[in-house]
Amino acid sequence: MNVIRNILSSRSNKDGNFFDAIQLIIGFKPKVIKHYKIAFTHRSLNRKDAIGNDLNYERLEFLGDAMLSSIIAAYLYNEVPGGDEGYLTKMRSKVVSRKHLNELGRDLGLINYVESNVPKSHFGQNIHGNLFEALVGAIYLDRGYKYCEKFIEQRVIKPYVDIEQLEGKVISYKSLLIEWCQKQKHKFNYEVYEDTGKDELKHFAVKLWINNKVVAKARATSKKKAEEKASKRAYYAFQAKINAK
Amino acid sequence: MNVIRNILSSRSNKDGNFFDAIQLIIGFKPKVIKHYKIAFTHRSLNRKDAIGNDLNYERLEFLGDAMLSSIIAAYLYNEVPGGDEGYLTKMRSKVVSRKHLNELGRDLGLINYVESNVPKSHFGQNIHGNLFEALVGAIYLDRGYKYCEKFIEQRVIKPYVDIEQLEGKVISYKSLLIEWCQKQKHKFNYEVYEDTGKDELKHFAVKLWINNKVVAKARATSKKKAEEKASKRAYYAFQAKINAK
Repeated sequence: MNVIRNILSSRSNKDGNFFDAIQLIIGFKPKVIKHYKIAFTHRSLNRKDAIGNDLNYERLEFLGDAMLSSIIAAYLYNEVPGGDEGYLTKMRSKVVSRKHLNELGRDLGLINYVESNVPKSHFGQNIHGNLFEALVGAIYLDRGYKYCEKFIEQRVIKPYVDIEQLEGKVISYKSLLIEWCQKQKHKFNYEVYEDTGKDELKHFAVKLWINNKVVAKARATSKKKAEEKASKRAYYAFQAKINAK
Repeated sequence: MNVIRNILSSRSNKDGNFFDAIQLIIGFKPKVIKHYKIAFTHRSLNRKDAIGNDLNYERLEFLGDAMLSSIIAAYLYNEVPGGDEGYLTKMRSKVVSRKHLNELGRDLGLINYVESNVPKSHFGQNIHGNLFEALVGAIYLDRGYKYCEKFIEQRVIKPYVDIEQLEGKVISYKSLLIEWCQKQKHKFNYEVYEDTGKDELKHFAVKLWINNKVVAKARATSKKKAEEKASKRAYYAFQAKINAK
């Protein structure tokens, strides 16, 4: 995700590289670029189609939200065969929470591609999640349900959906990881530095060193979040070792 | 729909024809019949899988509801390009309302296939909609999103979703039709009779005669509903003539 962000942050959608940028974000070739253009068109531009219908990302949010909900529903259904209807509903609402969608949109740097008559600094936090939903809607229109599923698997489920953490069983990957390092007498160090780049918001990057090797990197809007992200990545990398007796 | 109902009402899922019945209801061949068996298994049977997870239709309701929502969302998005997010949300909630889902499940006679330790007369009205949702979930698991879409188009959108009526622009097809008949000096007659068959609930059937010909038939749980349904069918059959000046 960070690689993509870094490549993308040096571009804007006005320099003709919008197609490439979208391809990098979604992970496959767009077919009808128009859908993505609409997904990044703010209502303040007051764009209309030939018969006067509004062209902005708000309708796509509705569509993307619906696709996201059904794809996450199917994922949870298959992943947690012991979870009843109430459990599945609760877990889904955690995954598609406003907070979580904002985080996803922010991490993909979607706001860099918005076309708007309003300055970006005037947007609230929800712009990130709204753009994320609209992007999902655009993918559905452009490439259908299967590609939508693929995108959500790559960008939502793999990096973010952790059933144990959603259930509250794992509170912090950082504490899990530190505990393991201490037990195993591994040296560890979280190297944190500011890395705001061209973002509107302050960002932090972290390198997690274990025994003089960088084992994971992460970037987020707070030190704590960046450390937790890096810890989670390291945790998964070492999972077999950590869980061995 | 009535043809299917009539064929089905003489069968039960215990007579070995469950596969045929499902095929008739869904309009294509099931592949893994197990999913449909679960879609008609009530929790009162207390069935479990090999590792103790509950096997009944409640989890499938969650899945089916999600699929239904996203398919209807995509349909409305494409069908009403002038509708904003709020409009689309409102229209969808009308289509997937509890009342509507119960009607769909009831019309397909799904309750005839439930396996349960509770007598059918003890179920509330929502059993019909719940079974309908569970059936959609089973179709998704068995045949994927595309077939789910196909089923919903055939069984929900084509016969029931009428944007104008949902918007409240058309209050009653019966009054539209009568008005047209009177203007055109057509003789018309609603022939209503009780037709409960093997249903738990009282049902009415109606034949709509125009100029000594039966132009539409319908069946529902009240006289008024059956007349409205028949009127709607006739309205669509004569639409070109009705709208001609």
